[in-house]
Amino acid sequence: MALAPAAQDLLFREARTANAFTAEPVTDAQVQAIYDLVKYGPTAFNQSPLRVLLIRSPEARERLVGHMDEGNRAKTASAPLVAVLATDHEFHEELPRLVPHAPRAGEVYFSDRAVREQSALLNGALQAAYFLIGVRAAGLAAGPMTGYDAEGLRAEFLDADHEPLMVVNIGRPGDDAWFPRLPRLGYGDVVTAL
Amino acid sequence: MALAPAAQDLLFREARTANAFTAEPVTDAQVQAIYDLVKYGPTAFNQSPLRVLLIRSPEARERLVGHMDEGNRAKTASAPLVAVLATDHEFHEELPRLVPHAPRAGEVYFSDRAVREQSALLNGALQAAYFLIGVRAAGLAAGPMTGYDAEGLRAEFLDADHEPLMVVNIGRPGDDAWFPRLPRLGYGDVVTAL
Repeated sequence: MALAPAAQDLLFREARTANAFTAEPVTDAQVQAIYDLVKYGPTAFNQSPLRVLLIRSPEARERLVGHMDEGNRAKTASAPLVAVLATDHEFHEELPRLVPHAPRAGEVYFSDRAVREQSALLNGALQAAYFLIGVRAAGLAAGPMTGYDAEGLRAEFLDADHEPLMVVNIGRPGDDAWFPRLPRLGYGDVVTAL
Repeated sequence: MALAPAAQDLLFREARTANAFTAEPVTDAQVQAIYDLVKYGPTAFNQSPLRVLLIRSPEARERLVGHMDEGNRAKTASAPLVAVLATDHEFHEELPRLVPHAPRAGEVYFSDRAVREQSALLNGALQAAYFLIGVRAAGLAAGPMTGYDAEGLRAEFLDADHEPLMVVNIGRPGDDAWFPRLPRLGYGDVVTAL
């Protein structure tokens, strides 16, 4: 591997989904540094459908916690920062800026809403993964969660053109921050050569 | 950032989607090292729906190229290694191994096929992104593509329980391997604080 072992540990091997955090704040400067790194991750046609909502105020936090599943509430209430990652189903409106060599790409490939929704889910999830890796690259732990009332979350914070992908708790891991590592599938279970 | 600048460059800033490759082979040992690193990336309920098909034989390569969009054929034919990344819609059958503390998770949460398909798309895409990062961590360039006949690809290489997510060319970048970097959305376009 070209990536040094310590960096491999930071991003994958020792990184864990944290369930408890210290009180140390996560600053806007840290989030900007994360975004400015991971924005370069590839998406199909550079479509970049991910949008990020940072839950900063106590009022917004309280509104968010009410839509989380029971088992996710305490950690969502106590994490230094919580981010709602969502896709924008109208991402094609930005394509003239994003693919200036193909200014009609939006009309040609993405005029159908159902096509955009599927494409935004795939490519928004890619960008969500880059974001999680970026949080780890910043020396922070991420706690991604999909256990929430998606329609409630959408109605509370988003609109009909945005779909929540996941909610992510962000901060430095606290005491007993994680469970033992779960097993993974082996190479032979996942990879087949033809 | 805790991740060293050179590693940030390797994974994001200088990494690019390659369209041309040298002839240097990509070995099974390299793919195994990539998998054994990125398998630790998080998925919801550790569901791990990603499956990888390595196109090794000339016959398989020829079958694959025929399903790619015109503009993707030459590079797919010439890349040292091509991988088809797919999701397994029957991933819940592996859950007793993956979440041994909740052996009935598959029946309780994933008995509905439509739920599994959406979950496999989101979580398979997360794992596909980890895989692309892993290819870069190995010092290789990845060329992810979604321009292909998905139903043709499925019928050729997969079955009704597997859905292609993307096809990835892998190798060392060759001459004129990429176009100039496309613009990205700014922090203020993507991130909102509440």
